[in-house]
Amino acid sequence: MMSTPGAVPDRQRRTFSTARLEAFSDGVFAIAITLLILNVVEATGGSPLAAFLNAWPSYVGYVVSFLTIGVAWIGHAALTDDLDHVDSVFLRLNLLLLLVVVFLPFPTSLVTAAFGDSVAERVAVTVYGVTLLCIRLIGIALDHYSAHEHLYARDRDETELVRTRRKNTLGVILYAVAIVVGLLLPGVAVTFYFAIAVYLVVPFREVTRLVRSRHSGQVPTT
Amino acid sequence: MMSTPGAVPDRQRRTFSTARLEAFSDGVFAIAITLLILNVVEATGGSPLAAFLNAWPSYVGYVVSFLTIGVAWIGHAALTDDLDHVDSVFLRLNLLLLLVVVFLPFPTSLVTAAFGDSVAERVAVTVYGVTLLCIRLIGIALDHYSAHEHLYARDRDETELVRTRRKNTLGVILYAVAIVVGLLLPGVAVTFYFAIAVYLVVPFREVTRLVRSRHSGQVPTT
Amino acid sequence: MMSTPGAVPDRQRRTFSTARLEAFSDGVFAIAITLLILNVVEATGGSPLAAFLNAWPSYVGYVVSFLTIGVAWIGHAALTDDLDHVDSVFLRLNLLLLLVVVFLPFPTSLVTAAFGDSVAERVAVTVYGVTLLCIRLIGIALDHYSAHEHLYARDRDETELVRTRRKNTLGVILYAVAIVVGLLLPGVAVTFYFAIAVYLVVPFREVTRLVRSRHSGQVPTT
Amino acid sequence: MMSTPGAVPDRQRRTFSTARLEAFSDGVFAIAITLLILNVVEATGGSPLAAFLNAWPSYVGYVVSFLTIGVAWIGHAALTDDLDHVDSVFLRLNLLLLLVVVFLPFPTSLVTAAFGDSVAERVAVTVYGVTLLCIRLIGIALDHYSAHEHLYARDRDETELVRTRRKNTLGVILYAVAIVVGLLLPGVAVTFYFAIAVYLVVPFREVTRLVRSRHSGQVPTT
Repeated sequence: MMSTPGAVPDRQRRTFSTARLEAFSDGVFAIAITLLILNVVEATGGSPLAAFLNAWPSYVGYVVSFLTIGVAWIGHAALTDDLDHVDSVFLRLNLLLLLVVVFLPFPTSLVTAAFGDSVAERVAVTVYGVTLLCIRLIGIALDHYSAHEHLYARDRDETELVRTRRKNTLGVILYAVAIVVGLLLPGVAVTFYFAIAVYLVVPFREVTRLVRSRHSGQVPTT
Repeated sequence: MMSTPGAVPDRQRRTFSTARLEAFSDGVFAIAITLLILNVVEATGGSPLAAFLNAWPSYVGYVVSFLTIGVAWIGHAALTDDLDHVDSVFLRLNLLLLLVVVFLPFPTSLVTAAFGDSVAERVAVTVYGVTLLCIRLIGIALDHYSAHEHLYARDRDETELVRTRRKNTLGVILYAVAIVVGLLLPGVAVTFYFAIAVYLVVPFREVTRLVRSRHSGQVPTT
Repeated sequence: MMSTPGAVPDRQRRTFSTARLEAFSDGVFAIAITLLILNVVEATGGSPLAAFLNAWPSYVGYVVSFLTIGVAWIGHAALTDDLDHVDSVFLRLNLLLLLVVVFLPFPTSLVTAAFGDSVAERVAVTVYGVTLLCIRLIGIALDHYSAHEHLYARDRDETELVRTRRKNTLGVILYAVAIVVGLLLPGVAVTFYFAIAVYLVVPFREVTRLVRSRHSGQVPTT
Repeated sequence: MMSTPGAVPDRQRRTFSTARLEAFSDGVFAIAITLLILNVVEATGGSPLAAFLNAWPSYVGYVVSFLTIGVAWIGHAALTDDLDHVDSVFLRLNLLLLLVVVFLPFPTSLVTAAFGDSVAERVAVTVYGVTLLCIRLIGIALDHYSAHEHLYARDRDETELVRTRRKNTLGVILYAVAIVVGLLLPGVAVTFYFAIAVYLVVPFREVTRLVRSRHSGQVPTT
């Protein structure tokens, strides 16, 4: 990393340990992810079984948003894990990230409520996509700011960082495409968001590795 | 434990300390268990006392689900306590566990709302049972994955682990039986779930020990 | 403390560090205390100012329950602060405590909803009082169990412990009296609970000390 | 700092580490900030897009209150970061702070519900302003108490402290002015609160520094 004039360590600026930041952020992520269940409600009419099954859009919305927030949390944990300390700008950028994460249950409820009404779906899906895009953009801003201000610990894993950045950029492009698609075909966009969430949550490399080790070696004794 | 080719420590894979995982999981468990109270509402009609007493199914639902999540949390605490570190697959499996734990308040509300309507009860009790079964199955998957990937610390208590595994297997069998029973006799299944929760939450071995020590020795001076 | 046969340290029994217990309990206390705000709703009818002011019972209920849970949390923090480790029985007793703490928002809403209807008030106030009594009784059970099982760290402050126990016993007596009074005069009992909460939350000894130091010494330079 | 008779360290008084206090406070702040999303609801009537857009007052209320609680949390983190230990009076003052922070979602919902009705707005905006003022006043009380009772660690940054105090005093004056203005022109007061929140959340000094470093030096390689 190149040193820039502005990045010279400034002894007068207050720094914070990451402990409090992590505790508060964990709390907010945990609550936002849990509040999603309040959007899950039974459909009305028909037999009890039909009422349960017809509510499937709210289950899908729950799972997609849960995975999205979950993956954002994993990304946040990975980011702060690499940090040595934070400053007050980081705390405020982080607050902005949380503001958008906490907002997600609202567009989730919009999407599930709009199901079947194509005009309402278009609005809801667009708001949903823009929210997801913002989460990712602020995450990228946090990473860039941390690098620029030398907040990262020296011994962080550069390979991992590069991989994360590639994944982040890909995420931004995918979400931007999904937003545009959603303006025309909202149903396709929802499927898209589901696919992105699954793509982000399933650790394909690891699964491949595990499957290979299963086939090539002994079955573990557990 | 036998070493398998896939389990050779892979220096390139990112590992995480368990601290963040525990903080986030504790938060989610804590919120899911607390949101259960939102399902507790007074019955309508009759005198104030009758309205209070007639809401008993919602109290039972609250207690059963509270104990179930509570026991799942104790199991989670015992599991992560034995871990040395976690990897990104573990984080994702853990996310899946939380997804189902957070879902539990929904089937709980289904069960309490269905009370007295046998068709609705059958649907609600089945969803409830399947949710409980999933929690247990994912818990088992976390244990097996941790053993397979050498995530456990070396000095973990093997005796305790064996006992936990036996309890887990028993739980799966009991829940599977309860789900089948619930399709025919939903009321019996609810009683069954209550009994399982009490069985899991009451530390019978310890109580026996305490009662014995009371009878055989002096009364403590506290 | 006398040693009893049952209290001989049992190497086979699993113990836990208090860290996870504290994190989970803090989370549950924090959420239960925060959910109380959901019971605060404006009264309907009249001018906006009247609607705001007429909702005063819900504000009182909020404050009383907030202080009650807050004081229970301080007591819990003081208790676990003195602990060296916990065992699985303690975890389960603790779960029982949390079950009742989380329940408190429900009787709080009963009390504020019952305002002005003396029959409903009697029911609500009794449920409220019994809940408060249970919180205190389980707290006492936790203390006795910890002492009996040698869970306390050796260097705990005995004077403080004695004082806490006296306060606990006084609390039980006061709540028992309030429950009986509430059956006849629910309004008096509510005032009583408010007074108990204020009594518990205001650190009279410390305030006396502070006031004295203000009068006898210099004004601090802050 | 001058030593006063009352501030002589009193060995008999119980002190607590800040860990539990921070964990509980973080939890309460996190939940209060997250519950704000429950006030965000779509407007009714009109096209889906209009329903979404017409709900803008609830979005503004969400953002203002989120930033306000967020800034209060940063202030709290900075305060407790400087503490060496706390005593039971501090815990109770802190409880009072949390009581008001948790209350904030209620006036927020009043303000967004009152939108367009000038009488209701006046009531709502005044309650909102008084709540904000109380948060700030209790924060100042915590700081003064900590200084008076020698709870601060010796090595705290005095320059930072002085700056924080100046900011606190300015905040009190601004909020007091806004409350008076709100009695006459509620709409102006809301804009004012929004401006204060933005003023508090944007780290102007840092932004200036960053912008300067961008212009004077190389572009970072991130």
